[in-house]
Amino acid sequence: MAEKPCSVAILGLGMIGGSLALALKASGFAGRVLGFDRDPGALAAGLEAGVIDHACEDLDAALAADIAVIAVPNLAAAAVLEELLARTDHGRSGPVLTDVASVKGNLAAAAARGGPAPRFVPGHPIAGSERSGVAAANGELFHRHRVILTPLPEQDEEALALVRRLWESAGAEVVCMAVAEHDAVLAATSHLPHVLAYCLVDDLAASPRREDLFRFAAGGFRDFTRIASSDPVMWRDVALANRDALLEAVDEFSARLAALREAIASGDGARLEATFTAAKAARDAFAEREARRQQN
Amino acid sequence: MAEKPCSVAILGLGMIGGSLALALKASGFAGRVLGFDRDPGALAAGLEAGVIDHACEDLDAALAADIAVIAVPNLAAAAVLEELLARTDHGRSGPVLTDVASVKGNLAAAAARGGPAPRFVPGHPIAGSERSGVAAANGELFHRHRVILTPLPEQDEEALALVRRLWESAGAEVVCMAVAEHDAVLAATSHLPHVLAYCLVDDLAASPRREDLFRFAAGGFRDFTRIASSDPVMWRDVALANRDALLEAVDEFSARLAALREAIASGDGARLEATFTAAKAARDAFAEREARRQQN
Repeated sequence: MAEKPCSVAILGLGMIGGSLALALKASGFAGRVLGFDRDPGALAAGLEAGVIDHACEDLDAALAADIAVIAVPNLAAAAVLEELLARTDHGRSGPVLTDVASVKGNLAAAAARGGPAPRFVPGHPIAGSERSGVAAANGELFHRHRVILTPLPEQDEEALALVRRLWESAGAEVVCMAVAEHDAVLAATSHLPHVLAYCLVDDLAASPRREDLFRFAAGGFRDFTRIASSDPVMWRDVALANRDALLEAVDEFSARLAALREAIASGDGARLEATFTAAKAARDAFAEREARRQQN
Repeated sequence: MAEKPCSVAILGLGMIGGSLALALKASGFAGRVLGFDRDPGALAAGLEAGVIDHACEDLDAALAADIAVIAVPNLAAAAVLEELLARTDHGRSGPVLTDVASVKGNLAAAAARGGPAPRFVPGHPIAGSERSGVAAANGELFHRHRVILTPLPEQDEEALALVRRLWESAGAEVVCMAVAEHDAVLAATSHLPHVLAYCLVDDLAASPRREDLFRFAAGGFRDFTRIASSDPVMWRDVALANRDALLEAVDEFSARLAALREAIASGDGARLEATFTAAKAARDAFAEREARRQQN
């Protein structure tokens, strides 16, 4: 039986929020899509492109929706969440609340201030792009990608079911995970690689050889550093919001890099070959599984 | 005026050697392509696929060619070069010699043992793939890519011109550079990223969370680690052959990563944002220039 379309408010009309709006309208999950953004230009562009149906003048106007999706960087998301909870009897009235931020710990902590917030469902779509802004919105972005929900203690089951249905409507596969587990997994597989890519490009850009370095960099460098073209404010917030898990990931990586450095310095070819071979095997297995998943 | 086709010997029939053979036959630069490989399976596959015209039984048989291209990993390349020089009066007789290895210092040193080798022209195509083996050969691989030649002291000008023409026939743009400059530039833009990518995948594969890590890794991780699917023996050789420049690059990177770690630990959002913004600007400029170059 088809469900009745929902009204959805997108709070923060960037690439992720815009992509979700497009997907939800295309699937019929969303009837009316409201948008709110501090930047009037983003709202105007979203209206013009048909990404949203209505531009809200303030946060209060967004409270009329059935679901509100906070789609701003991690630290701003915590502030918006606290504002929404303050205006809705800690989420008991008003829309079901969810978000798309890459770190869940700081949002779970923000929600817990002032008691349980059973109708806030933390979420994180494992999909993205180095592009940003509503002009980069793509209704297929979440198709066959995973979305991790990290339900809170005393989570309202109906709210959880609604947010799950929202993401499934957008074509995603929904998985639930504990907040701390999410933040540790993402620190290792996403936040650390972003820091390493930014660090490498920054390193090269500061070199006296800078011109030649970028002139002779090739396809491997281009792919390795693609994520260094990501939004700096979003990633600043991720690094700050997930500080402890990220530091742990940086330290583990640094220790392993120091060991590889020693193998290079001492000419230990067997050690290098064993490490490279193990890494290639793990990476090949990952790539094959990903390719299969995209086909199915 | 069209030049007379050359006979070309490819010593080491892997992805790079096979791709070059295909390109040279397609362009008409090569009349007859000879192949030599220690692996009879690679030679048989190369003959079967029409990548080479004739399989040599030994190195001596390859000396009949006009040009011999050493296309094996860096340390093996040095050994093959020394063998060829020993059989050809240090390169004064026999084919013009060149190679495709990613480090030039160890080959220049090998060539210099026993006096100048004016008809050996060290070369390095800045093109590749994480795939390996003759089955991955692709005649378009070098099209619009750069090839760096690092001429040696007392370089024979005719030999240099012939190797330049070989690569231009394959569709590449040829640039000359000093050996030490080449090795420093490539250490920073290629060898270091490979070490970092191998290191990250090895790090994750050793984690007790391994299953979840690879399960929830996404597109950013896939691109960042693509080069960790590269041939381990080739990259072991690169790391050993370019040890000093690579260690310098690793140390500079590690110092910069330690500074970023401090900014994360101390919650220095301004520092993080400034670093990420500078890196994004440099990486965006690189990507735009690359895109323009591929179009022109």
